[in-house]
Amino acid sequence: MTTDSHDWFNTAVQALADPQGQRVWSIIVSFLGDMAQGEGAGISSAALTRVITPLGIKPEAIRVALHRLRKDGWTDSERRGRGSVHFLTPHGRAQSAEVTPRIYMRRTSAPQDWHMMIAGTPEGLELLDALADSHRTTMIRVNRQTLLAPGEAAAATPDLLVLNAEIATVPAWLKEELFPAALRKSCAALDAALLPLGAAPPLDPLRRACLRTLIVHRWRRIVLRHPNLSASFQPADWRGEACRAKVFALLDAMPLPSLLELEQAEALPLPEEAADLQA
Amino acid sequence: MTTDSHDWFNTAVQALADPQGQRVWSIIVSFLGDMAQGEGAGISSAALTRVITPLGIKPEAIRVALHRLRKDGWTDSERRGRGSVHFLTPHGRAQSAEVTPRIYMRRTSAPQDWHMMIAGTPEGLELLDALADSHRTTMIRVNRQTLLAPGEAAAATPDLLVLNAEIATVPAWLKEELFPAALRKSCAALDAALLPLGAAPPLDPLRRACLRTLIVHRWRRIVLRHPNLSASFQPADWRGEACRAKVFALLDAMPLPSLLELEQAEALPLPEEAADLQA
Repeated sequence: MTTDSHDWFNTAVQALADPQGQRVWSIIVSFLGDMAQGEGAGISSAALTRVITPLGIKPEAIRVALHRLRKDGWTDSERRGRGSVHFLTPHGRAQSAEVTPRIYMRRTSAPQDWHMMIAGTPEGLELLDALADSHRTTMIRVNRQTLLAPGEAAAATPDLLVLNAEIATVPAWLKEELFPAALRKSCAALDAALLPLGAAPPLDPLRRACLRTLIVHRWRRIVLRHPNLSASFQPADWRGEACRAKVFALLDAMPLPSLLELEQAEALPLPEEAADLQA
Repeated sequence: MTTDSHDWFNTAVQALADPQGQRVWSIIVSFLGDMAQGEGAGISSAALTRVITPLGIKPEAIRVALHRLRKDGWTDSERRGRGSVHFLTPHGRAQSAEVTPRIYMRRTSAPQDWHMMIAGTPEGLELLDALADSHRTTMIRVNRQTLLAPGEAAAATPDLLVLNAEIATVPAWLKEELFPAALRKSCAALDAALLPLGAAPPLDPLRRACLRTLIVHRWRRIVLRHPNLSASFQPADWRGEACRAKVFALLDAMPLPSLLELEQAEALPLPEEAADLQA
């Protein structure tokens, strides 16, 4: 590790600090999903604190967030030796596993084949509601009566008009609904923050864990807020694909540390201390 | 001609009398479209009266109907010799020519390829309204926002979501909208009226003209009131295809007379006289 690497790390952490404020519970979920999703994987309070305090998060905020996550059934904690170990519950693991493919998808492999379902009765509308609710990330509610779903039409749905469809034109109003201005702005902001960072230098396990957590956290809040759609659905100013490329270039340059490496790592200097050192 | 032929003709005229009452102007339009659609084609008052009085229509009603048709720009009349000659105006010919292919289509050659247009803005809705208005017989307004049109999507329509579509399921509610109960009932009634007639015997030109007019009149009021759609769109009790087969079997057995034959024909005995003869 060189001082240059540490400077780069500090710059990256500052550049990627979430402009919408940090939700500590969400950062912990990002960390566990990235590095401790497997059954039996867990992290001690001490190691978790070492990983995320460099993001400017206080130990007290971590305790509050862990309390909330336990209450919501996402994580559980066990006493081991002098401290606690925290891990995803089966429910938390399932939730995490569900979104992992979307978060870590390196290329848009968006569906080319679609089918369109149109309701014309109360029963049909209920069916659309149920389908849309259970396929939030893959189906598109075009309007109250209309649902666009990937793949070919499967089971017969006697209440719905069903068409196998190939997209010819996507109008601006639908692009705007699928990629709202706030999401486009967040994505452009992340892309702009990543741009000056360039390639990541080699980093120690703790810094890799810290920065991976931050990057995954920022990226998941973009990628999970829009369906996986090919370029024809994307507004002209959508920076998602440029952003995705930068995210994976960085993650690839920062291989996953092992949980043991994190348990054994020495704490980084706190941000104030780091600032003092640089001053 | 045999008495049997004349009996069959009288039976057919009675069986096919429009249960919804005769609209004389519409019968005249059916006649002109079938036998005098060409430029320069026309029929004298005397011959027209000979063709349609056997349907139980009084000469006075014919005069009133011709007055209405002239007023509406469908027909025009000219004095020739001692009487008048009546013919379609260019406007009437154009209207007639527009529906002729639908009326005389021997097989449902319904579109297999469709495209779906969905509006999401006031501009898009206006565009759908305009398209639907100008393609009443070919496009399907599935709901306020949605128009289904035959063939592949053509020009780019930036305000609309456009999909090339293959129909997978047509629900009962859409079949019901496309083939309403009243239309299904009219069609079943015509089919039932045609069934006992069997094959047409050879008939003289005037009887052929009279019965052709009646059959075309009844059929056009069914065929022009629903879009041309394949079996997958048709309700189970739709008798349209059975009806079409019977209509064309009869028309084929009653070749078009020439207008000259109609001018030279002798009037049939009036219905009362025919009844007297039969009694």
